[in-house]
Amino acid sequence: MPEEFRVTPWEVTGDIDYDRLQTQFGTTPIDDALKARLEKYGPLHPMIRRGIFYSHRDLDVLLDRYDKGGDFVLYTGRGPSGNTHLGHIMPWMLNKWVQDTFKVDMLFQMTDDEKFLFKEKLDLKDTTSMAYENALDFVALGFDPKRTRIILNTKNIDRLYPIALRVSKKVTFSTAKAVFGFDESTHIGQIFYTTLQSVPAFLPTEENGRQVPVIIPCGIDQDPHFRVTRDVAPGLGYPKPTMLYCKMFPGLSGADKMSSSDENATIYTTDSPKAVKKKVGRAFTGGRVSVEEQRQLGGNPEVCAVFKYNYYLFEPDDEKVNELATKCRNGEILCGECKMCLVERINVFLEGHQDRREKARDVVADMTYDGFEW
Amino acid sequence: MPEEFRVTPWEVTGDIDYDRLQTQFGTTPIDDALKARLEKYGPLHPMIRRGIFYSHRDLDVLLDRYDKGGDFVLYTGRGPSGNTHLGHIMPWMLNKWVQDTFKVDMLFQMTDDEKFLFKEKLDLKDTTSMAYENALDFVALGFDPKRTRIILNTKNIDRLYPIALRVSKKVTFSTAKAVFGFDESTHIGQIFYTTLQSVPAFLPTEENGRQVPVIIPCGIDQDPHFRVTRDVAPGLGYPKPTMLYCKMFPGLSGADKMSSSDENATIYTTDSPKAVKKKVGRAFTGGRVSVEEQRQLGGNPEVCAVFKYNYYLFEPDDEKVNELATKCRNGEILCGECKMCLVERINVFLEGHQDRREKARDVVADMTYDGFEW
Repeated sequence: MPEEFRVTPWEVTGDIDYDRLQTQFGTTPIDDALKARLEKYGPLHPMIRRGIFYSHRDLDVLLDRYDKGGDFVLYTGRGPSGNTHLGHIMPWMLNKWVQDTFKVDMLFQMTDDEKFLFKEKLDLKDTTSMAYENALDFVALGFDPKRTRIILNTKNIDRLYPIALRVSKKVTFSTAKAVFGFDESTHIGQIFYTTLQSVPAFLPTEENGRQVPVIIPCGIDQDPHFRVTRDVAPGLGYPKPTMLYCKMFPGLSGADKMSSSDENATIYTTDSPKAVKKKVGRAFTGGRVSVEEQRQLGGNPEVCAVFKYNYYLFEPDDEKVNELATKCRNGEILCGECKMCLVERINVFLEGHQDRREKARDVVADMTYDGFEW
Repeated sequence: MPEEFRVTPWEVTGDIDYDRLQTQFGTTPIDDALKARLEKYGPLHPMIRRGIFYSHRDLDVLLDRYDKGGDFVLYTGRGPSGNTHLGHIMPWMLNKWVQDTFKVDMLFQMTDDEKFLFKEKLDLKDTTSMAYENALDFVALGFDPKRTRIILNTKNIDRLYPIALRVSKKVTFSTAKAVFGFDESTHIGQIFYTTLQSVPAFLPTEENGRQVPVIIPCGIDQDPHFRVTRDVAPGLGYPKPTMLYCKMFPGLSGADKMSSSDENATIYTTDSPKAVKKKVGRAFTGGRVSVEEQRQLGGNPEVCAVFKYNYYLFEPDDEKVNELATKCRNGEILCGECKMCLVERINVFLEGHQDRREKARDVVADMTYDGFEW
């Protein structure tokens, strides 16, 4: 019997069965044929190759259009409720790959309103200022500054609100209840919020005065929002967005999703090398109780957070990552050694990232949607 | 047994029992003592004297504050779903009296979003352009251009949205359901909308960085919105608004509320003298079946739309209006004569109003909140 799990845009708990989730949400697996098709546009991103981005809606439809010369826009986002961690930037890296591969414009939505509405203790001032810090991490990944615009909901609301109103007129409380699990005690800001997340999917069509679809690569936990977006799109005269969904980035504790609620199991982009060493040192692994036993029986990379970090982000070479798994299973590598190696990789990445993050301060002002001021 | 009636911000039906409504909503009668107190600030407005503005919340609290030198701001509004009629401008006239009497700043909110959300067939473009036409009527009444700002929700949303979000976080669906009669089929835009109507009550405090209460003179049908506003105010650190409520302006058909759904019983501010003559000619009166009977038994001004128009708007002299009632009851005046007299009065008013309305086109651009462009 599968362990119970729960995946909503605001809560991910339990041991996620991603296949079941796919069936539950009604999304389509990215199969080998689709991967082969994608490879025609350029080298496949490891996250697609490895099934981290594993599910979609209408990706084939978007590619058909693209093959005929049709354009599209890339859209993803971030709810600014705290510092950026590796779990946030993982899907952004795939977005960067989409922008580079297809040479497309991008909208990055920062939902400071959402985080204010869904986090009891956060004030709007908190979420708006966090948005700036988070945006630095986004920009640091190297998105094309000419092709990329950052939306901050409270700052761009004049452009977003009319479209949000149109969306809202198509969504009953009954629907919102079914999709998001709301009840009578849900407040009316939370009930309305989903409309704002639909808007960037429709903005390119509004701006261009012709049908311009978007592709939204993001965590599969966001599917409830975009099911709504896709449902209302035809009635409002907009194309349905294409979805590209990834699994959650795991926590160092072994949990299925890295979360700021467990700070010690979370690596922030601003962490010092020392902090990274400490956190990875405490990570949950697939190791045995003793060195002897591990040498004899081998470890279990399937459940190991350290291995997952290599698999998700830090070892893009398939041969090498397979070799690491084999070594682990054969007891040829011990957890301490493996952790040291991951610490080194994370710290090399963070050193470069933190440097680019500082430089982003000069660029981020020019990348705001409609030229809003931070 | 009283006939059933229903009063919500979006629907007024049946024969309204205003005393019962007051009890139902929990508002307070404007009694003789309060009228006497109001008279100290200047001549009482006929609408207060005659009990058309008949109910309030915390007017005494506001006057106590004013007597101690405290300031306040005036706030009322309009949902732009069609042309302005006499029923709309009636409460605005009382607002003008408040501005003149207390020399206060004023916010006039045009809820183009509301009308889009609550009128199935209206598009946002319709409601936004109607807002401009309605604003001309408002300005034509002579509000102080230096002290008066017109808010158009979709244009000023950048200022309104953060406060609306704060309001929304305090209102559950359960509350919205109880206050407005929403159900599962209500769409999420309608559910959220009330937050926008709360905002101007809190703007003066936000803008001044200190507690500045507002007074809101409007139809009692708006009380559900402002019950919400008053409930959430303390938790958000804002003063509760003072309410001043009027009865609905009657239709020429004898209905309790003038409504654009019955065009023939509705006098628009842009109506021609001929149209007014035709509409008043068809008005429901308290007359008898024949001239003879009326001379003998007299008419009934209580139920007569023509008399009500004099009482509400067109005969501010108490002696003269009483005389008219007496003459009617004694059969000394016939309906035709009375109608001719009202037609004359309405047309004199409209002639001047239409002239001021044209001149308002030059002023209205300078009266927009935050300087938005129409």
